[in-house]
Amino acid sequence: MKKIPYKIYLEESELPKQWYNVRADMKNKPAPILNPQTLKPITFEELRPVFCDELVKQELDDTTPYFDIPQEIIDFYKMYRPSPLVRAYCLEKALDTPAKIYYKFEGNNTSGSHKLNSAIAQAYYAKQQGLKGVTTETGAGQWGTALSMACAYFGLDCQVYMVKCSYEQKPFRREVMRTYGASVTPSPSDTTEVGRKILKEFPGTSGSLGCAISEAVEAATTQEGYRYVLGSVLSQVLLHQTVIGLEAKAAFEKYDEKPDIIIGCAGGGSNLGGLISPFMGEKLRGEKDYQFIAVEPASCPSFTRGKFAYDYCDTGMVCPLAKMYTLGSGFIPSANHAGGLRYHGMSSILSQLYHDNLMDAVAVEQTSVFEAAEKFARIEGILPAPESSHAIKVAIDEAIKCKETGEEKTILFGLTGTGYFDMVAYEKFNNGEMSDYVPTDADLEKGFAGLPKVDLS
Amino acid sequence: MKKIPYKIYLEESELPKQWYNVRADMKNKPAPILNPQTLKPITFEELRPVFCDELVKQELDDTTPYFDIPQEIIDFYKMYRPSPLVRAYCLEKALDTPAKIYYKFEGNNTSGSHKLNSAIAQAYYAKQQGLKGVTTETGAGQWGTALSMACAYFGLDCQVYMVKCSYEQKPFRREVMRTYGASVTPSPSDTTEVGRKILKEFPGTSGSLGCAISEAVEAATTQEGYRYVLGSVLSQVLLHQTVIGLEAKAAFEKYDEKPDIIIGCAGGGSNLGGLISPFMGEKLRGEKDYQFIAVEPASCPSFTRGKFAYDYCDTGMVCPLAKMYTLGSGFIPSANHAGGLRYHGMSSILSQLYHDNLMDAVAVEQTSVFEAAEKFARIEGILPAPESSHAIKVAIDEAIKCKETGEEKTILFGLTGTGYFDMVAYEKFNNGEMSDYVPTDADLEKGFAGLPKVDLS
Repeated sequence: MKKIPYKIYLEESELPKQWYNVRADMKNKPAPILNPQTLKPITFEELRPVFCDELVKQELDDTTPYFDIPQEIIDFYKMYRPSPLVRAYCLEKALDTPAKIYYKFEGNNTSGSHKLNSAIAQAYYAKQQGLKGVTTETGAGQWGTALSMACAYFGLDCQVYMVKCSYEQKPFRREVMRTYGASVTPSPSDTTEVGRKILKEFPGTSGSLGCAISEAVEAATTQEGYRYVLGSVLSQVLLHQTVIGLEAKAAFEKYDEKPDIIIGCAGGGSNLGGLISPFMGEKLRGEKDYQFIAVEPASCPSFTRGKFAYDYCDTGMVCPLAKMYTLGSGFIPSANHAGGLRYHGMSSILSQLYHDNLMDAVAVEQTSVFEAAEKFARIEGILPAPESSHAIKVAIDEAIKCKETGEEKTILFGLTGTGYFDMVAYEKFNNGEMSDYVPTDADLEKGFAGLPKVDLS
Repeated sequence: MKKIPYKIYLEESELPKQWYNVRADMKNKPAPILNPQTLKPITFEELRPVFCDELVKQELDDTTPYFDIPQEIIDFYKMYRPSPLVRAYCLEKALDTPAKIYYKFEGNNTSGSHKLNSAIAQAYYAKQQGLKGVTTETGAGQWGTALSMACAYFGLDCQVYMVKCSYEQKPFRREVMRTYGASVTPSPSDTTEVGRKILKEFPGTSGSLGCAISEAVEAATTQEGYRYVLGSVLSQVLLHQTVIGLEAKAAFEKYDEKPDIIIGCAGGGSNLGGLISPFMGEKLRGEKDYQFIAVEPASCPSFTRGKFAYDYCDTGMVCPLAKMYTLGSGFIPSANHAGGLRYHGMSSILSQLYHDNLMDAVAVEQTSVFEAAEKFARIEGILPAPESSHAIKVAIDEAIKCKETGEEKTILFGLTGTGYFDMVAYEKFNNGEMSDYVPTDADLEKGFAGLPKVDLS
């Protein structure tokens, strides 16, 4: 058997040429997304004013198994992909485990995460459609950064509505976006009607993601030649992110290896869905078996304590509704530092798969996540993003279980990004000032009370 | 001819197994370093209390051409090396140049720069010698971060004296170091005699690199089992950094290519020396020819306007003296944001090579450097460190010259690191608030006036 290197890099020529649409192999398809006004399944025509045509097609298509990746996107991918599949030899040794641990590392690009995989696709289709630009919202700024880079590459205008408190308190990501030519507006702003309304009602508000989404959607639909784009949750985003899993699978096959357990952090689901889709396809087709584990923060436990129901994807209730595991669009997650996982809902694809017992989910607490992050940083040399560290925590737990049982399992987890812009959270941890928070059942009931009543009969 | 991919990765098995000591091939050797007390060539025994034994040997050896890289260091290198040699196809296209542009990218590791290559070597030798730990100083924090990572790997104590104003104004790098287990002390501090003395004389001072060096050296020499380590300038550091040039050369040879021009930014010289050494060796031995260009900031022009003379390596005058291009150890560079290039002197190896007309040097102004950085970020997708961007600026200039003359030159430059922790500087640039500064001749004369009188006869 070939000796497995620390980092497995595919050749450029081995980059995936198609994205994989896992819905095509699902017996129980995700429920259709609904028009927020009519609460009926939304149509192509109804979605066109908001999203690019080609992306609407991808969003609504649950039967085509593969979509060709346009050459222009492949060329962009070549600047930072294939990303390495890393064998965590040092971590295995430190844990003294018989398990083999691998991680697919998506942090080695300037956006610092996997978000760039979908940003470049969405920018490409906007460019192809002859649009002038796109609008979006961003909280901590990872998605906004990725989109700025993608738009700079294609010469598209990029308008980012950034939650005001992040705009002021996290100026570094804001400046990365500006360096890539994006215009970044603190939200709520006086550039949109909804923004002005909110500012009048709540002068001095520091904003919210829900408000920023509403402003971005208004900006897209009221400017000629603009569309709105989103970085997670949607099925089109999961589709683009399958480049992660396809590469990982190809890298394993090169060495005649196969993971037994696949672990990913889950916020909206884009990284987890992208990582597991090709493997899940094999499981759905009865070809191979895998255990999948979604890891979410205990402070925002959509899978483990949420309800499987139709809900709004945004707090502003302007986006389509999806059937998903949700805490209710009115649920306000606590100030958990893993910003990318503070989302009330979950991809409808992953929700259906979880509902059908095709994957597992666990919720973990923040301080244990940072303990795992620090250990990983010191042993494997990479400072992980707090989001990614949720997966690290559970991968370590599983490897320790293997030590106890003597099983030589092969574990794969997704290392979605780096933590360079999360040092305020690390500082809290270093100072012993970090705490955990788990919502009570009563907290959750408040969120559930706001779930919409949907009747599709 | 094989199609050249965007990124050339060597196999793990092709990692260099020896560092190359360019001094062995130099006809005119660098002048010996001097004991700061006696101003006579310093001996092995005199250096032992400050540096590890093995590193002293490397420092003083100007005849052995190759040093074996210990297996433990190679194993660490495997976590982030071989680093890619990148073909800048997008930049070539954007510049519409017949030149081929390559860069050796050293930024894809958590320290964010090439500094880790020497940090791990210095930590290894300290561990081998049975030491408890090492001390060092850091300004912006790149070197301190790299050393913290290396010490965490070998379980060594790491004490970093960080210039107080950086400690307070740049808390993020400080927190990365703490996450890796280093103790970071704002300098001047009350933990050393020299620190207390300075605090008494200048209460409220925000510190300086010179003061931090003095504290770190005192801490190393007064604690049992500690030594002092340094991240640039020294010949041992250039030796370790030759892993950069050796990998680049091997990658070119894989594709039967050869650079015509090799460009690097120059502060203390560790990156530039490491990149060019193996190519310079061929030039010195008359085997091949290359043009080498050192790029320095116009605000701190050691090569282009300095004197070739013996000088102190630190403003505190506790370290050995070296014969080098220098602006005088009392020269205070302006607040240039390329922190890593704000050094009054230059590696004695590079100084001798420059003195012997074996390489060229140019000085460039800050705003033009940030213009190049922004262009590069948008076109090639990587947000470069301000230091590295000096090399980008000149690489672009050379590529444009090729367009004018029609020459198909092959250009290689060193992309030493990423700019994620330099967003304050980018913000100034984005806001149009950045300015240039070029010292007057009178400014320089003040620095030269402090040069020591050395008589080696």
